[in-house]
Amino acid sequence: MARYKLTIEYDGGPFVGWQRQPNGLAVQQVLEEAAARLTGVETLVQGAGRTDAGVHALGQVAHLDCDKPLTGNKMREAMNFHVKPHPVAIIDSEIVDDEFHARFSATARHYVYRILNRRPPPAIDKGTVWHVPNRLDEQLMHEGAQYFVGHHDFTTFRSVQCQAKSPVKTLTAITVSRYDDEIEVRVSAPSFLHNQVRSLVGTLKMVGEGKWPPLQVKQALEAVDRAACGPVAPPDGLYLDKVDYPAGDVPAAD
Amino acid sequence: MARYKLTIEYDGGPFVGWQRQPNGLAVQQVLEEAAARLTGVETLVQGAGRTDAGVHALGQVAHLDCDKPLTGNKMREAMNFHVKPHPVAIIDSEIVDDEFHARFSATARHYVYRILNRRPPPAIDKGTVWHVPNRLDEQLMHEGAQYFVGHHDFTTFRSVQCQAKSPVKTLTAITVSRYDDEIEVRVSAPSFLHNQVRSLVGTLKMVGEGKWPPLQVKQALEAVDRAACGPVAPPDGLYLDKVDYPAGDVPAAD
Repeated sequence: MARYKLTIEYDGGPFVGWQRQPNGLAVQQVLEEAAARLTGVETLVQGAGRTDAGVHALGQVAHLDCDKPLTGNKMREAMNFHVKPHPVAIIDSEIVDDEFHARFSATARHYVYRILNRRPPPAIDKGTVWHVPNRLDEQLMHEGAQYFVGHHDFTTFRSVQCQAKSPVKTLTAITVSRYDDEIEVRVSAPSFLHNQVRSLVGTLKMVGEGKWPPLQVKQALEAVDRAACGPVAPPDGLYLDKVDYPAGDVPAAD
Repeated sequence: MARYKLTIEYDGGPFVGWQRQPNGLAVQQVLEEAAARLTGVETLVQGAGRTDAGVHALGQVAHLDCDKPLTGNKMREAMNFHVKPHPVAIIDSEIVDDEFHARFSATARHYVYRILNRRPPPAIDKGTVWHVPNRLDEQLMHEGAQYFVGHHDFTTFRSVQCQAKSPVKTLTAITVSRYDDEIEVRVSAPSFLHNQVRSLVGTLKMVGEGKWPPLQVKQALEAVDRAACGPVAPPDGLYLDKVDYPAGDVPAAD
């Protein structure tokens, strides 16, 4: 029996989210059914981040156990065959130590949020960006975002359904950058609360539109009150970009 | 009556192409029906490039006439309202001289072709890139591509259905560049033959895979024989990026 670390890209559009749910198809279910076809036995696939309905991934990480003697590359190819026709792709796969756990071994998660900031709606990027027609000031957004950095009670920026024991989290970095019509918010932390990134981005949009001065972000954070949050940004623009692990957890050889 | 120049983005996936056809929905039809709803009369929309089924546009240009006194911006907003729910967006609109013709006034067309060059298939970019699993050498592709530059008989690289009177065209520039897993082919000319860009790109893939030395591109061109062409690349990766006009054709004021 070997443990495999999978790096996964998906379009969250057609899914109810990462985690299996009774109300529709989840990414986890697509992967578990693919793994069952491959291994012949029921197989659990554990993910690093429980992305919501409609949220995408460029580098979700998951692990599974398999007693067929497959190399990492063979596992990737076989899984890519079995996940068809769903918009899910295993972009990397490697054999890891049995102690490796996609969720509990993770040391940092990196998300990116894409805003299409122009009057006309997206044609090609429909469903993969948040369309904001009014001009946003990305420099003010970046300034306001810096109040989030550090160790804070993020009660204002968590979903009421959030099941985390504590609302206190450490945000490592957040940047807001513009590339022509597109604004990219990049945010990193050891872990996040439910809806935290979308709550942060929705709040920063208020700043970008000039409705909030950047300092109001600090006041919202200090209010420790969900009602002080700006609107929650839609899932369309959110991507789980990358998950970090301690170097020793993944052996270099396959 | 005023003439409007529209710059249009679309996802070619659901369409039979730019031009109206009996076998399905065309982008031109979506725009003409939107224009008819807006103006109340049957309206012709003429495009600069007759993109094929599945080919996308970032900057297709078209013109239409309208006797409602709308500013360029109002026309753009109204058209974006009326093209819903199709993946078509008018990204710019301006009033131009009555002599302006989207197709006949155009001085250059610029296409970009996106190749996803990695083993795993695309999940998020499905339908908007050509997936080539085998590693391509973009430097050899670029070297081979340079034989296309200049004034040539492109019979080898035109569809048998091409209706152009002459197979002789002038290719202004072509570049092949890699950005991580993505290879981008950019190609510019005053005008193109039917399937020309896809024929060029499919041929360059043979070079990138090492199946053809770059010099074989020159031999294929000189053969003046459709049979000497490499495979035609699929429409998925092709985008009409931009169309140029003489500066005087578009007045600066709206």
